[in-house]
Amino acid sequence: MLKCYQIPDLKKIRLTGGFLHDFQKIVKEKAMPYQWEVLNDRVEGADKSGSIENFRIAAGESDQEYFGTCFQDSDIGKWLEAAAYHLAMEEDPVLEKNADDVINLLGRAQQKDGYLNTYFTVAEPGNRFTNIRECDELYCFGHLAEAAVAYYESTGKRKFLDIMCRYADLLCKTFGNEEGQIPACDGHPEAEYAFVRLYEATGCKRYLQQAGFQLDTRGSEPYYYDIEWERRGYKSFHPHLQGERPSDDKGYDQSERPVRELKEPVGHAVKVGYLLTGMAAYGRCANDQEMLNACGRVLDSTIQQQMYITGAVGSTTHKEAFSSAYYLPNGTAYGETCASVALIRALVAAMRTSPRSVWADAMERIIYNALPAGISMDGEHYFYVNPLEVYPPEIQADKIYEKVKPVRQPWYPCACCPPNLVRMAASLGKCIYLFDKDRIYVNLYASSEGTLTLDDHSKVHLIQKTEYPWDGMVHLQVEGGSGKTLFLRIPGWCDEGWISVNGKSLGSVFQNDLKKNSGNSTADQEDGYYSIEIIEDRTEITLELKMGVYPVYAHPLIRADAGKAAVMRGPVVYCAEEKDCGKLLYQLSFDPDFGFSVGPETVWHAPVLSARKGFRDKYSENVSKKPYFKQRPEKMEAAIYLVPYAFWGNRNDGLAKEMTVWLRTAESSDKSI
Amino acid sequence: MLKCYQIPDLKKIRLTGGFLHDFQKIVKEKAMPYQWEVLNDRVEGADKSGSIENFRIAAGESDQEYFGTCFQDSDIGKWLEAAAYHLAMEEDPVLEKNADDVINLLGRAQQKDGYLNTYFTVAEPGNRFTNIRECDELYCFGHLAEAAVAYYESTGKRKFLDIMCRYADLLCKTFGNEEGQIPACDGHPEAEYAFVRLYEATGCKRYLQQAGFQLDTRGSEPYYYDIEWERRGYKSFHPHLQGERPSDDKGYDQSERPVRELKEPVGHAVKVGYLLTGMAAYGRCANDQEMLNACGRVLDSTIQQQMYITGAVGSTTHKEAFSSAYYLPNGTAYGETCASVALIRALVAAMRTSPRSVWADAMERIIYNALPAGISMDGEHYFYVNPLEVYPPEIQADKIYEKVKPVRQPWYPCACCPPNLVRMAASLGKCIYLFDKDRIYVNLYASSEGTLTLDDHSKVHLIQKTEYPWDGMVHLQVEGGSGKTLFLRIPGWCDEGWISVNGKSLGSVFQNDLKKNSGNSTADQEDGYYSIEIIEDRTEITLELKMGVYPVYAHPLIRADAGKAAVMRGPVVYCAEEKDCGKLLYQLSFDPDFGFSVGPETVWHAPVLSARKGFRDKYSENVSKKPYFKQRPEKMEAAIYLVPYAFWGNRNDGLAKEMTVWLRTAESSDKSI
Repeated sequence: MLKCYQIPDLKKIRLTGGFLHDFQKIVKEKAMPYQWEVLNDRVEGADKSGSIENFRIAAGESDQEYFGTCFQDSDIGKWLEAAAYHLAMEEDPVLEKNADDVINLLGRAQQKDGYLNTYFTVAEPGNRFTNIRECDELYCFGHLAEAAVAYYESTGKRKFLDIMCRYADLLCKTFGNEEGQIPACDGHPEAEYAFVRLYEATGCKRYLQQAGFQLDTRGSEPYYYDIEWERRGYKSFHPHLQGERPSDDKGYDQSERPVRELKEPVGHAVKVGYLLTGMAAYGRCANDQEMLNACGRVLDSTIQQQMYITGAVGSTTHKEAFSSAYYLPNGTAYGETCASVALIRALVAAMRTSPRSVWADAMERIIYNALPAGISMDGEHYFYVNPLEVYPPEIQADKIYEKVKPVRQPWYPCACCPPNLVRMAASLGKCIYLFDKDRIYVNLYASSEGTLTLDDHSKVHLIQKTEYPWDGMVHLQVEGGSGKTLFLRIPGWCDEGWISVNGKSLGSVFQNDLKKNSGNSTADQEDGYYSIEIIEDRTEITLELKMGVYPVYAHPLIRADAGKAAVMRGPVVYCAEEKDCGKLLYQLSFDPDFGFSVGPETVWHAPVLSARKGFRDKYSENVSKKPYFKQRPEKMEAAIYLVPYAFWGNRNDGLAKEMTVWLRTAESSDKSI
Repeated sequence: MLKCYQIPDLKKIRLTGGFLHDFQKIVKEKAMPYQWEVLNDRVEGADKSGSIENFRIAAGESDQEYFGTCFQDSDIGKWLEAAAYHLAMEEDPVLEKNADDVINLLGRAQQKDGYLNTYFTVAEPGNRFTNIRECDELYCFGHLAEAAVAYYESTGKRKFLDIMCRYADLLCKTFGNEEGQIPACDGHPEAEYAFVRLYEATGCKRYLQQAGFQLDTRGSEPYYYDIEWERRGYKSFHPHLQGERPSDDKGYDQSERPVRELKEPVGHAVKVGYLLTGMAAYGRCANDQEMLNACGRVLDSTIQQQMYITGAVGSTTHKEAFSSAYYLPNGTAYGETCASVALIRALVAAMRTSPRSVWADAMERIIYNALPAGISMDGEHYFYVNPLEVYPPEIQADKIYEKVKPVRQPWYPCACCPPNLVRMAASLGKCIYLFDKDRIYVNLYASSEGTLTLDDHSKVHLIQKTEYPWDGMVHLQVEGGSGKTLFLRIPGWCDEGWISVNGKSLGSVFQNDLKKNSGNSTADQEDGYYSIEIIEDRTEITLELKMGVYPVYAHPLIRADAGKAAVMRGPVVYCAEEKDCGKLLYQLSFDPDFGFSVGPETVWHAPVLSARKGFRDKYSENVSKKPYFKQRPEKMEAAIYLVPYAFWGNRNDGLAKEMTVWLRTAESSDKSI
């Protein structure tokens, strides 16, 4: 039998300060109301959403025309899910009324047989379930169903859950291998996880079975998407897929092989992330180790071979996809915000049966870097694509940068990312701990207070006080839990750390043999945690993680970063911006051996870093008259200031400016500091 | 009145040895017969051409279906033009019979009213002149007409010229600003230059006027391409232009402004090159200084801001176009072979009224690098796109490399480049000298022998003996020309050079004030030539250009080359190949201050270079287990061998292998050699 871990109940945990708290606060106070206005088409200058109006049309309450792509409904699902999480954490009558109003509207828009999809109800009546591959009916269902479960868990109200169960019942009748059923899985994975969530909320086994069907149908023969494509007369919904036989690119929807045989991420990055989430959740609930193993293999491969230093994944614009191992270009990086969200969720889902510190490290990498970069400090502007290097003249110069925006946008015609980011931010509390009846894993360090109800119904109250990630000192107060074991994650970036328990120093966290600490017999357990047996009713733990600044180098097969280094401090990736360093950042280099100065300036509480030995290429006066010349550029010393990547582009007054994560390294003959 | 210069008559000049001679020989002996087979659809494994067959169909002599794009006819024009040049240089009954046969076929395919275009005759009868922008009727006419003039000049046979004059007469009736005429210029420039050539061959002023109309109509209002697009029901011939209103991208066909107001290259790179050729030729024949000034401005801007070190131009795949100033990416470089051809022709055309050494330098850069790289040493494989860096795993990994082929191809579905390259190679003799009644400019150094008939009908016989560009010693024997002035180009890459005349040393070519030597009053004359007054009937000149190896650095605004250097020897750009340096070329760096070794190994007579202080990044053993790590890679000494870019990819047995022109520079603390 699998070992399974719970995640915190958002009603019982909250962030109380620091980076993640501030991030969540911007989302709650700014982004949530702003997005509500956008979804209602009341924000001038933002791309139109149409999402709420589409439901009104479907309910027969508006005579407007359907607006947007075929998956507009999912934006509502994500926003409602975010609303549910916020309502779990604190009361908000205005937010709850808005949410209830939308839920009532969904109820009125639902068809008699349970069907609920505005695109096929309004824009293509009669064509439902004719383009499973491209038209995202099951994807939209999934997001709405996830929201429904979250809303039920937060508020106790059943209406939304009932609506989605009616739709789920229709889908369970429609999809399957029985005579008269459609033997297809969702073109854009998402329903798998949603069906597991419905199962967890209702106990209805049919939903878990449908999740299993969805998973195991993928990659099976015959390939249903060819069949439906032929039936449709070879037409595609998306212009960029027109003329392509679906089976010409089975990788796009992860159908090259059965999911149980997957070894690496293939195709559309967000699809992969949601698929893995579904695989992990299903594996846990169905006690399916083979499914979990496949999920774990793909996660490991993703982290090792296809993840940017910021945690972003999916490096190519074409089909928004994963690419080959170690192909991680910086300027044309896609790194969709949704893919970051999807991967965090997959990692959390996977850790629920296998708390591995390397997965927690990856989660932390995304949470402190790629994810928050997706939103502006004003909460009202968003990135869809997250490059690691921006040089505005080139973005103008070449269509290969077509999707790269150097400035966060108020909304997008394809607006999947902004509401996805808010639901992830709202649920960060779920990422902090994992626990069962006798173990508590601490995966994130963040000022927070929470109560965990362990599997044996005992309660443990945990209070974290820390300025992490700006400071490495973490005070953790544990109330209760006597006889349980606490596992503190020692981040992969950390080389030095000290610990004391109830005022007594235990020395370096690295003297403790981390490998042995895990102490359980399953193979999926690994090193990276420091274990403490709780023996008192109240335990005061002080963990000090040395928060050094360090240069980072990339794997020898990552061509884009050869001869370059990035700079990190703790889990935070820094970048150079035009605002601080001037234009032409590619002319900068630095000698990492000289180290860095920290502060005293700060941006949003983060210390600004500066390279102690920074240079800028210096060209002789007359070279600009020729495109190529013989005079070697000299290096003149230059100040290089670095700020967290998470905050980039926030100080440019909305103008496109340069940014880069990776900087050229240089050797300076003078090694004195 | 303009000062105008003649170019050599190919019947009176030939290459006798060395690089350019060998290049021309491969083209004559291998490529010409090979392409003849391809054009006749007799080469298995090569993309089908259909070009000859299309003419048969148009002549009613075949019942096949039209094959290929709308501009297949131009491939025949280019091949015939190449044939004409070869026949000028030496008799070849087989080649001449093949050419005559095609010409007779063209005659039979020509419509009664003179129209001659297989696409609209066969595939879209009734639609002629309905899509001037995209369907290349005037472009195909231009290539055939250029060939006809060349064939007439070479062989004295009028038939082809007469055919094309009949078509030209129809076009002159069809296009113009009079009532009932189409007020349009060619969508793909080429006809302008062809009309000037027809004027020069026939003396018929109507053709010169039509060239002028074509030029001055471009960029005028109303924008005819919108009008015809509306008439066609908003349809485009090319899928990638579908749905785009032509005026949304007037730059694509250089129509943003009147050509006289152009300041920089805009849009499709080949179109720009042919347009400039037409502008220069028309300006010369019509005594139109304003037109020449515009052409010169665009050439200067191109050379200064948008030319790769290899001479290639047109950096972006999207619309095969010029881009912004200094945007010159290496891996996604387009650098179409046709654009190299077009730019050489434009430069030669422009120098005929303004012999500027900076233009001759640019011409030399293309001729020794980008152009010959377009063909394999076996003469039967070609590059369309000419990147400066090839890393095969990434070409597979991302659609942004879609058009980059790491291996030369036997033919292309869009086969404009291979026959264009052969006509350019065949006419290289025309690029060597410029002359009028009292001046002779020597623009290329190459073993050759030629007789120039100056404007005063006096004859000068010139014999060059040199191993240039592998050696900088040039022996030039001048017979006749007493009282004339010889201008020897001192290449821009050269820092040291010595000269002697009739055995008497005149010392350094740089002691002579090159600026004053030009001695004429026109503003377009400039420095860069060394002048010698010819006073004897037989003059022996020895010019020694110091053929050093030197690192080259790129303009501070060329981002792609920051922190890197290329290596040149004389005019020849070198590159590193996997064959000599191993895989992962991006891990190499070198300290240019240590210099280079020359030979003793050679490839195709070129000395192989090696960096005296080369390095390869050395990673510690265990880093490959993590994507990012803290251990700085060390540098271990490594051999870096370099071969001419012109020859790259010829030693790989047809496999995709790495290549790079630009290498990272490094500083080594040990400066002893």
